[in-house]
Amino acid sequence: MEQKLYDYLKMIEEVDRSRLNELQDRMNKLTKPKGSLGRLEELALQLCMITGKQRPLLENREVFVMAGDSGIVEEGVSAYPQDVTPQMIYNFLNGGAAINAIARTTGFEVNVIDVGVARKIGSDNPRFFDRKIAEGTKNFKKERAMSIDQAVGSIVTGIEVVIQRNAERRLDLIATGDMGIGNTTPSSAVVSAITKVPVENVTGYGTGIDDQGFVRKVKAIEDGLRLHEPDQNDALDVLSKVGSFEIGAIAGTILAASILRIPVIVDGFISQAGALIACTLEPKAVDYIIASHQSFERGSSAVWRHLGLRPYLYLDMRLGEGTGALLMTGLIEASINAFNEMATFEDAGVSNRE
Amino acid sequence: MEQKLYDYLKMIEEVDRSRLNELQDRMNKLTKPKGSLGRLEELALQLCMITGKQRPLLENREVFVMAGDSGIVEEGVSAYPQDVTPQMIYNFLNGGAAINAIARTTGFEVNVIDVGVARKIGSDNPRFFDRKIAEGTKNFKKERAMSIDQAVGSIVTGIEVVIQRNAERRLDLIATGDMGIGNTTPSSAVVSAITKVPVENVTGYGTGIDDQGFVRKVKAIEDGLRLHEPDQNDALDVLSKVGSFEIGAIAGTILAASILRIPVIVDGFISQAGALIACTLEPKAVDYIIASHQSFERGSSAVWRHLGLRPYLYLDMRLGEGTGALLMTGLIEASINAFNEMATFEDAGVSNRE
Repeated sequence: MEQKLYDYLKMIEEVDRSRLNELQDRMNKLTKPKGSLGRLEELALQLCMITGKQRPLLENREVFVMAGDSGIVEEGVSAYPQDVTPQMIYNFLNGGAAINAIARTTGFEVNVIDVGVARKIGSDNPRFFDRKIAEGTKNFKKERAMSIDQAVGSIVTGIEVVIQRNAERRLDLIATGDMGIGNTTPSSAVVSAITKVPVENVTGYGTGIDDQGFVRKVKAIEDGLRLHEPDQNDALDVLSKVGSFEIGAIAGTILAASILRIPVIVDGFISQAGALIACTLEPKAVDYIIASHQSFERGSSAVWRHLGLRPYLYLDMRLGEGTGALLMTGLIEASINAFNEMATFEDAGVSNRE
Repeated sequence: MEQKLYDYLKMIEEVDRSRLNELQDRMNKLTKPKGSLGRLEELALQLCMITGKQRPLLENREVFVMAGDSGIVEEGVSAYPQDVTPQMIYNFLNGGAAINAIARTTGFEVNVIDVGVARKIGSDNPRFFDRKIAEGTKNFKKERAMSIDQAVGSIVTGIEVVIQRNAERRLDLIATGDMGIGNTTPSSAVVSAITKVPVENVTGYGTGIDDQGFVRKVKAIEDGLRLHEPDQNDALDVLSKVGSFEIGAIAGTILAASILRIPVIVDGFISQAGALIACTLEPKAVDYIIASHQSFERGSSAVWRHLGLRPYLYLDMRLGEGTGALLMTGLIEASINAFNEMATFEDAGVSNRE
């Protein structure tokens, strides 16, 4: 199984920078002051380098909501009961969640992948994938969250679901998403383990625990990290000791996008933990990531900084599911359309700067 | 003429807060942790209060690009020649500018209003409005930019163009925009005059002047403010002494939106100067404004702070035309669709917090 993962990682190449000068040159000839579209220009050029096209297609858009449960909820780290994970999955499949409304608005299809929910999910919805690794992770305060085999399995599952969907219909734009009660806790643990930022500085209130719950949450993560001493350079060690299945599967989504040269919009804090796992396994993957928003969750900025990325949206969101990622759609479309549809100074007969 | 403006101002009422508790209550019943959609929730509630509807229509969207020239360009404050103002107007009318590409992407129509371009514009394009107040403002380093009558005229023109378009097709969403070589200079002057932030802290490099040009620009503004001593509480005094026609017309766009109870997305720095004029004339107008982006132009944050608003997008843009405003479209749609389409905890059978 591990060999399979390494074979996938070997398929990831750098983005195509060979035409960057030519693309930048075109950008500078468009009828606007040089650089005045700001980060929209960076975004357009990144999309071109990822896809190798001057006008990347943006037709087929899918978000992959990775769902799982976390044994650490035993420690009282979440404001909601664990039953909410399967309940929300049914809500996704019925189209009633925030991610569904935003997906309809932005032209995305929503895939829901059970990679480790504690209950059996019964659904024949074609957008549901039963890829359960186990019925939830173990309580990482007491023992490893999962075996190395399971960690590898969660990542490979994430990779292969995306590859399968791409084979079925060609994907042009991918977004990461998550569902799992309590999963900001393994996310903070993964983020602290890899970035070495102290636990308290990368731990937030999740879905809304009270101050006592916050103290329990920080302590549970600190205890877990002290017990396991994960190696910051070994993503499988970190993921297996203090991670969760959905974090592994999100890493897989990002790695698959990198293999397939498809832009992948990374959502908030849980997805960011997945991005850290992906980029620790293969640093080239970072070039395929579009950083979406600054989450309200305290550790969000530490992750973007660690990855050398800057988010575009500052919305104080803390919902997950992929909601923040999909809000990038309009900016992505606008960046590509402006780059391809604007007149040049010469064509429009506009004087360039003196 | 001044009486006409005051009659318009009297038509502006506060947004409808009577249903805020009921709306907030609905928001809290949706299947997401309370408050977890962050500023998207604020945005949805603001749109409801502006329009008085739980599901505001977002069908008819128009941006009003106010175009004019500034006499202060004599002082060498811009990187581009003044001819670019009319050239860019033809580019707008031919669909080749950034605002056109982004308007097509986001479903907006582009209106171009000549309120003071230094050259005659010849066009029978139905989206072009010839409402020239004069052929450019005067050089405010030496004399008033315009008379009080012209200042009032520019604002009333902005108001009446929007009222006319609304009568023709019912507008659901409005955005502000601008074109005018050198117009960051009167904008910085207006912003410093009203906010009392020192000129140097609200003056940037505009379309890209060099360091010497920047020094000239700051000095020209400081000289103008010293000469005229505009009254920070008297918007007509400020606008007429150091403003520009397009800034007045943008203020008019915002006031018209407030009169008509239509949400108005305010673009970057020049539009922000217009917002200061509008909200100094009638502070209730601020509730109708959707702050779009933090411009790269240095004074942008001072204006948002003065208005008590926070932008959503951090894109380092400095293009104007309304481009940054239109990038809010996806967020606005998503906020309204999530608010109206999401299932409640009860409907979806999802357990609420313990």
